[in-house]
Amino acid sequence: MELHAITDGKKSIKELKEIITSIADVVDYIHIREKCKVPAEIIALVEELIYAGVEKERLVINDRLDIALLTGIRNVHLPANSLPAAKVKTAYPYMRVGVSVHSVEEAKTAEEARADYCLFGHVFETDSKKGLAGRGTNALGKIVEQLQIPVIAIGGITPDNVEQVLEKKVHGIAVMSTIFSSSQPKEAAIHLKNIVQKGG
Amino acid sequence: MELHAITDGKKSIKELKEIITSIADVVDYIHIREKCKVPAEIIALVEELIYAGVEKERLVINDRLDIALLTGIRNVHLPANSLPAAKVKTAYPYMRVGVSVHSVEEAKTAEEARADYCLFGHVFETDSKKGLAGRGTNALGKIVEQLQIPVIAIGGITPDNVEQVLEKKVHGIAVMSTIFSSSQPKEAAIHLKNIVQKGG
Repeated sequence: MELHAITDGKKSIKELKEIITSIADVVDYIHIREKCKVPAEIIALVEELIYAGVEKERLVINDRLDIALLTGIRNVHLPANSLPAAKVKTAYPYMRVGVSVHSVEEAKTAEEARADYCLFGHVFETDSKKGLAGRGTNALGKIVEQLQIPVIAIGGITPDNVEQVLEKKVHGIAVMSTIFSSSQPKEAAIHLKNIVQKGG
Repeated sequence: MELHAITDGKKSIKELKEIITSIADVVDYIHIREKCKVPAEIIALVEELIYAGVEKERLVINDRLDIALLTGIRNVHLPANSLPAAKVKTAYPYMRVGVSVHSVEEAKTAEEARADYCLFGHVFETDSKKGLAGRGTNALGKIVEQLQIPVIAIGGITPDNVEQVLEKKVHGIAVMSTIFSSSQPKEAAIHLKNIVQKGG
């Protein structure tokens, strides 16, 4: 059972480096999702993380395939309207490509495009999508049933509700604020990891 | 003497397609610089342009090396704080890489990073950098003197002032609004091309 941590776009490079190095041995993947930072900053962050001992295999670059290629990262996550997964897989078959999906149809399209996994959400209401009701665990369950590729659940997942997600036979969960908005990110990650491991 | 046309980020995909196909045989390079459009849209535009007969060799992708790689475009232009030119040239030596510069120091750095050319500006005051005085043709002349790589001038260049730029022995000029804000983009491009050819 995988645990993905996704950066929240609210931290400085220095804060990100501190948090990511502290959780790197706890979580399975860390997605660098920093839409308001320029490529030069993101590349510098990735290089600092690798220099600090974070395993390349655990880093996932959001959207910018070029940053992944230039830093030797083999995981890229494609949000809605990003690069087409099929084109990425054709040009770079060794690249592990994830795709964000919000419905069974999108999930099927991602699977046909040879995505390695899909990230479905948001399952519960979340601060990062304020005012939007969660799509719910039933919708999550249907996607898991209908897909062959792994489904990772995202959106408002906390230690209090993660059991409901694990019941749906997901391949893993992804969190943003539960780790990155915590005053103790490492402890938050360990707590979640322990629950997830029991459920997995 | 090269003439570069740079999209202004204000047009729809449909408008861009119309204008670009109309000027593609007139200008030497067309830079796709659409910061507010998502990668999926930019890829669709590039593919439509190629399908409509625009030569790949004339297209330049701004910032997104990944879009260039996935669409088979071998020209990429790197604005400030984009991907580092040296990394791009090392990983993709066949890629023609341009870099935006604003001073002799930045131009020297671009040259050391093996940029194929630099784009210096803005030379004159321009609507896209409102309220900022142009860096002037003297500064442009100094950069041309001190660099080995070609210097392309940008910023507020029109048929009325282009002669002052050509006097500085630039390798070419780049325009945005002079073509893309014109009610007759093709005629504007032809007019400018005629002046540039005489000066070159």
